[in-house]
Amino acid sequence: MRPESLHEAMRYSCLAPGKRIRPALCMAAAAAVGGSEADGLDAGCAIEMVHAFSLIHDDLPAIDNDDLRRGRPTCHKQFGEALAILAGDALFALAFQVLASCSASAERLLQAMRVLSYAVGSDGLVGGEVVDVLSEGCEVSQDTLEFIHTRKTGALIAAACEIGGLMGGGSFAQVQALRCYGQHIGLAFQIADDLLNELSTAEQLGKAVGTDRARKKATYPALHGIKEARSQAEKEASLAVECLAPFSGSSKRFLKDLAAYSIERTK
Amino acid sequence: MRPESLHEAMRYSCLAPGKRIRPALCMAAAAAVGGSEADGLDAGCAIEMVHAFSLIHDDLPAIDNDDLRRGRPTCHKQFGEALAILAGDALFALAFQVLASCSASAERLLQAMRVLSYAVGSDGLVGGEVVDVLSEGCEVSQDTLEFIHTRKTGALIAAACEIGGLMGGGSFAQVQALRCYGQHIGLAFQIADDLLNELSTAEQLGKAVGTDRARKKATYPALHGIKEARSQAEKEASLAVECLAPFSGSSKRFLKDLAAYSIERTK
Repeated sequence: MRPESLHEAMRYSCLAPGKRIRPALCMAAAAAVGGSEADGLDAGCAIEMVHAFSLIHDDLPAIDNDDLRRGRPTCHKQFGEALAILAGDALFALAFQVLASCSASAERLLQAMRVLSYAVGSDGLVGGEVVDVLSEGCEVSQDTLEFIHTRKTGALIAAACEIGGLMGGGSFAQVQALRCYGQHIGLAFQIADDLLNELSTAEQLGKAVGTDRARKKATYPALHGIKEARSQAEKEASLAVECLAPFSGSSKRFLKDLAAYSIERTK
Repeated sequence: MRPESLHEAMRYSCLAPGKRIRPALCMAAAAAVGGSEADGLDAGCAIEMVHAFSLIHDDLPAIDNDDLRRGRPTCHKQFGEALAILAGDALFALAFQVLASCSASAERLLQAMRVLSYAVGSDGLVGGEVVDVLSEGCEVSQDTLEFIHTRKTGALIAAACEIGGLMGGGSFAQVQALRCYGQHIGLAFQIADDLLNELSTAEQLGKAVGTDRARKKATYPALHGIKEARSQAEKEASLAVECLAPFSGSSKRFLKDLAAYSIERTK
């Protein structure tokens, strides 16, 4: 479909090999509240599109200037900057198209769209990215570090859990418990990411390493040291598991395992 | 609210002096179907945010590389490229937040969000922009020119009319008539824009002129000459007015006057 190169760039970034944590969370959350995993599939795809959009824009020369992502050249390296900016924008729009077409009641879809747009906006992912960029090379407080991490990574992961709960037909209390789980696991993920950036290799990660330190980025290891950062990540993963108290069964086990994985992963 | 500079950049671009055609259309459409102008106000603001987001990204160095917009330095000239990219993204997200909070039934809001996301995406505004960028310096066909114009400008103007009709409580037939009006007036607007870029001054327009010709952009004047382009714009404006047949009263008069204004304006 015209314009071919735009759709190619969108597919290139969105379908690149990745962990698909957000769709997995969304589907597991739908099942945890008594729906099926399939109830969270389309919404999970929408959230992955938002994730891909944010990675494309963050990698741009004007922002993080990264050449490598998911083991491949970044979108702007492959397609040029203009197409990368616009492919990000189009993926963001497509996410809302897909979410608006999920099969759930209009009230639930509308709530999901509120959650998603809020998670992306100036008090979510984009706001976190801005503070992150502005903090490069500065001494930052724990407060600022938390602002960045809860928004830049935490917001969309929490939204994936909350939206999954909504799509699965969850009650208000169930959906809030999933949101809470998502906030903690999101923070655990980001601290683990910071540790991998510091300690891993580009070959293992599929993206550049040591870049946070080189850019003097605000990270947990930079502010608190490796050991304390690791213990913070463990604490967040364990708080995430506590939020799962209202649930049972295999979806709960999956979400619990994912909390452990969030801090033990090597990529 | 934190991050201050992001919100400043968002306000700078979105509240810059502009014609506010899209909100005006949205409000008039809401009134035309029997609602009040106020029914289209919040949705109109959301649409203006999307318009501002698209202008910020189009003006970026990697895309149109424009220094002047609405008589002021463009967003990236004022705040730097990183903040401009992210301010655009945040305005896009805020548009969906605002639209999702309008007072209308969940069904109508959901439909409005479908219309908006489709109007922005790869078969709308962003798709049109991509073909526009890729066509620079090439000989383009009438078919390609129409693809660019109907998407780049037409899609969001048509969406403003359609969403206004939805917010005012319009019937299916009323909303479709408004959409059809919007498609024609959108094309008339874009052809008039092309003519102004060719014939006006930067002082009068508040943005650079002669840029289309310099970049060998695909425009109606370039493909068909000034006289034929003007007659095409008149034809589209008159087709727009024909779509208003189902309506009456002062809102209809306003929409009719706007069709005339779309081609007679000097900025």
